[in-house]
Amino acid sequence: MAPAEPNHKPFQVQGELPTFEEEREGWKGYIEWERYPEKKRKAADILAKYDFPVPPEFQFEPLPKSNPVLEGVRWKHYHYAMGPTISNMPDISWDYVKKEKSEDMIHVLQFPYNGEPPRKRLVETEITNNPDFFVRNHGGIPEIDSSKYYFEVEGLVNDPKKITLELLKDESVFPRQSTVASLQCSGTRRIEQIHEYPGDGDELINAPWGEGAIGTARWTGVSLKKVIKYCGGLKDDGAHLEFFGADTYFKKGEVYNYAVSVPVRKMKINEVLLAWEMNDEPLPAIHGFPLRVVVMGYIGARSCKWLTRINVINAPSMAPVQMKEYLYYTPQMGKQNVTYSSGFSIQTMPVSSAIMTPVNNDVIIHDGTITFTGWAFSGSGWPERVEVSNDGGGVWYEVPDENLSKKYFHAWRTWSFECPVDAEGWLEFCVRCWDDALNTQPTYVRSAWNWDLHVTSSCHRVKIYSVNKSRPNTAKRLKQFEERGLPFLPLTRPVPFDLETEEDYLKEMQKRDGRDPTE
Amino acid sequence: MAPAEPNHKPFQVQGELPTFEEEREGWKGYIEWERYPEKKRKAADILAKYDFPVPPEFQFEPLPKSNPVLEGVRWKHYHYAMGPTISNMPDISWDYVKKEKSEDMIHVLQFPYNGEPPRKRLVETEITNNPDFFVRNHGGIPEIDSSKYYFEVEGLVNDPKKITLELLKDESVFPRQSTVASLQCSGTRRIEQIHEYPGDGDELINAPWGEGAIGTARWTGVSLKKVIKYCGGLKDDGAHLEFFGADTYFKKGEVYNYAVSVPVRKMKINEVLLAWEMNDEPLPAIHGFPLRVVVMGYIGARSCKWLTRINVINAPSMAPVQMKEYLYYTPQMGKQNVTYSSGFSIQTMPVSSAIMTPVNNDVIIHDGTITFTGWAFSGSGWPERVEVSNDGGGVWYEVPDENLSKKYFHAWRTWSFECPVDAEGWLEFCVRCWDDALNTQPTYVRSAWNWDLHVTSSCHRVKIYSVNKSRPNTAKRLKQFEERGLPFLPLTRPVPFDLETEEDYLKEMQKRDGRDPTE
Repeated sequence: MAPAEPNHKPFQVQGELPTFEEEREGWKGYIEWERYPEKKRKAADILAKYDFPVPPEFQFEPLPKSNPVLEGVRWKHYHYAMGPTISNMPDISWDYVKKEKSEDMIHVLQFPYNGEPPRKRLVETEITNNPDFFVRNHGGIPEIDSSKYYFEVEGLVNDPKKITLELLKDESVFPRQSTVASLQCSGTRRIEQIHEYPGDGDELINAPWGEGAIGTARWTGVSLKKVIKYCGGLKDDGAHLEFFGADTYFKKGEVYNYAVSVPVRKMKINEVLLAWEMNDEPLPAIHGFPLRVVVMGYIGARSCKWLTRINVINAPSMAPVQMKEYLYYTPQMGKQNVTYSSGFSIQTMPVSSAIMTPVNNDVIIHDGTITFTGWAFSGSGWPERVEVSNDGGGVWYEVPDENLSKKYFHAWRTWSFECPVDAEGWLEFCVRCWDDALNTQPTYVRSAWNWDLHVTSSCHRVKIYSVNKSRPNTAKRLKQFEERGLPFLPLTRPVPFDLETEEDYLKEMQKRDGRDPTE
Repeated sequence: MAPAEPNHKPFQVQGELPTFEEEREGWKGYIEWERYPEKKRKAADILAKYDFPVPPEFQFEPLPKSNPVLEGVRWKHYHYAMGPTISNMPDISWDYVKKEKSEDMIHVLQFPYNGEPPRKRLVETEITNNPDFFVRNHGGIPEIDSSKYYFEVEGLVNDPKKITLELLKDESVFPRQSTVASLQCSGTRRIEQIHEYPGDGDELINAPWGEGAIGTARWTGVSLKKVIKYCGGLKDDGAHLEFFGADTYFKKGEVYNYAVSVPVRKMKINEVLLAWEMNDEPLPAIHGFPLRVVVMGYIGARSCKWLTRINVINAPSMAPVQMKEYLYYTPQMGKQNVTYSSGFSIQTMPVSSAIMTPVNNDVIIHDGTITFTGWAFSGSGWPERVEVSNDGGGVWYEVPDENLSKKYFHAWRTWSFECPVDAEGWLEFCVRCWDDALNTQPTYVRSAWNWDLHVTSSCHRVKIYSVNKSRPNTAKRLKQFEERGLPFLPLTRPVPFDLETEEDYLKEMQKRDGRDPTE
């Protein structure tokens, strides 16, 4: 388990632990809240009795070097307080991480589980294999017997239905759709904002994501459009599709089921899929088994997992994840003045990109070129061009088209580039993408800071210490290290031998006419 | 004492501890090395037997939060290895810190002692009181009976002499000079380079200085020009004045007395003082009691403490502090190619400045102006104008002349400024100075990085989170906190109450015509 957070304290039951019933047979860890206002009130009353541990400070402080980076104690306690139906969620979730995800994942938050794969591997293939696919969960992982699985369609549809997985898979009823699509968390690259410009702590913890909160899979299932049609179509004022998950969500002392919404327009253009397969395999539990939503080009948060219900409504969902979170604020909004209505809703993901290798602060010994790899993505289109700068954003080099992976309507492109590098010392490299609509990225993270630390889409920068061994003086120095059997790294380890003999020094000084000017 | 460094290991004598003699009666801790090549060789042989602890990594890592920040274990061990004459130097030095310096000094390096005062207090007076004056020592503190004190003048002078303190103070022989002068370490503000662009680790440890490695005092003593005249004047080829201190210095396995040099031109214009008084008090031991050099406008390193000898030579000193250190390299020089001759010697300090309050990352609640205080300095002239920018270097405000302290030929000016601040959120403020020769500062630390991390003279920047309570929405939010008895800080602590009621939210959404566009 993760090291204890500094504000950790042991969980202590206040009063008696409640027992909330499982909602459905064959489903474990699913408490239905939204249909039972009294149950919600009861849960709020229970939560009000607790003084939950405060999330740890990690924005004004260095990030812990542990893995998991953060534990999520507060969130664990929320679950403990709800009694046995979901109090074992932190353990169950962590077991699924160990079972379904790669061993070397970077666990940015242990519970609810948030994790990303190592940078280098993520861009070695254009399709992300399932164990490497990032996970951004908002609660625990319900365990569902697929033979007992169904979801409901209700609200502003003409013919509300319950639909089982078996029915959904029946190709005589629903045609299949299989689409390669990237999913991205709006927290991707948040780490760049965190330490430069601390922002919303968020009780769930705004996880310190690196560049890996994005992944690409071939999703197979049924277009939601077909399902709505099967339910008799929308009523006239049906404007938004609200998705409910089986997971429990907490916000400011209230309890909810995870819920979000998308405009019906998105469904009508076949960009909302109900998927049971991820890269030709059944969905892993951690990714929503047996059925999840996949909304193409949108923030991952809309792609609801463990779908229980689709509710057609006449306006965006008032559920907290939709109304109160994933909002994009202007940089003068913050703790002192922010309101939910002052941010716009993050739905379509902007054009963005990242350098995955080398990583920030690497020291690279090279012959005049350094190889960069990375990804580029645009939620509203597709990457047309990727450019790398070797001087922080003045000169740009185009990544040749043959170094970009295949174009998909709804997916990223991975890329690699041999960048010319003449200069030595600390250099700043950055990348930007142009999509098919000529959108590109802000130049600096400074211009894109926002209180909730979402969508770090500015040009991604890495500082690299360049050692160009095609230069004679550099070759000579490296040889001195080699001859003495000494490592050149770490960079800041003092050079244990003299940098220049007195003789060479005096000769050079003479050439330069000494250190002093002349009268 | 400081917390142990990560590479710390206990000192273990290799062979037998040597006993090097005290050089002079009434002087404690002064081993003369430079006059005895055999003794130097013996010391080098002893040092070669040891595997000294490696300096800790603090450039790629967060700086320790301890005070002392760094301990200097390697340097302590150097002294231990030299036997009883100086092995107690680390303890003696630390005792002097406790006796002579303010209690709240920031000890950036425990041994050799490097320390600076708290930012705010440093600029409250134009003259720095002695306990607050920064200290940058290169070795231990010798203890000298002033009645037994003398220094020698030799080399390219017509009449070499030994001069006692008593003689120097005899006004019938030497006229007095009293000058207000700032001394500045070239490491001032190094902390800005350290984490952005790690560089030379240096076996002595390139101390992580903040903005306080500068101080201003009235120094009283005799102009070196008068002393040289007393010694019959310079011989024709006398070009540099080499100063030796009683402290022991170590460099790459060799042992030295601290030694530096300045060109004779500097002495001829009466800018080199031999001073025994600092702000009308005898020099504190930690600042060179009983006599030190003060070189006006130059890097502090040339102002040799515990002066034993002045040697007139025909070229800059070949001693390591002069030849191998305090060199300013172009940004493409580094571990891979740097030679001593490729840097120019840091003598005159450039125009520079710093914001001392508020400090980086402060959250300031204000009514539309924020007060800044700081200092400005120019080694080759004096500060004529100070300007503050509230947008990172686009718009500049002139600090009114009445808010600047008095002009001296050789000292800084302190300043304060009520800066207009309308915007909220993270803002970047910076300061620059123009001196009488219209020199000003580089805009970004990036442009001024150098391998040895010297002279951070770029515009000093602080990020401030601005909360402008003259704005209605901000006043309203602050009142919400107040009414609930909740603190607004820490900034990243989540707001525990709802940011907006559902009613207000829906009203605002209606005003904005909802979240969706229209067909």
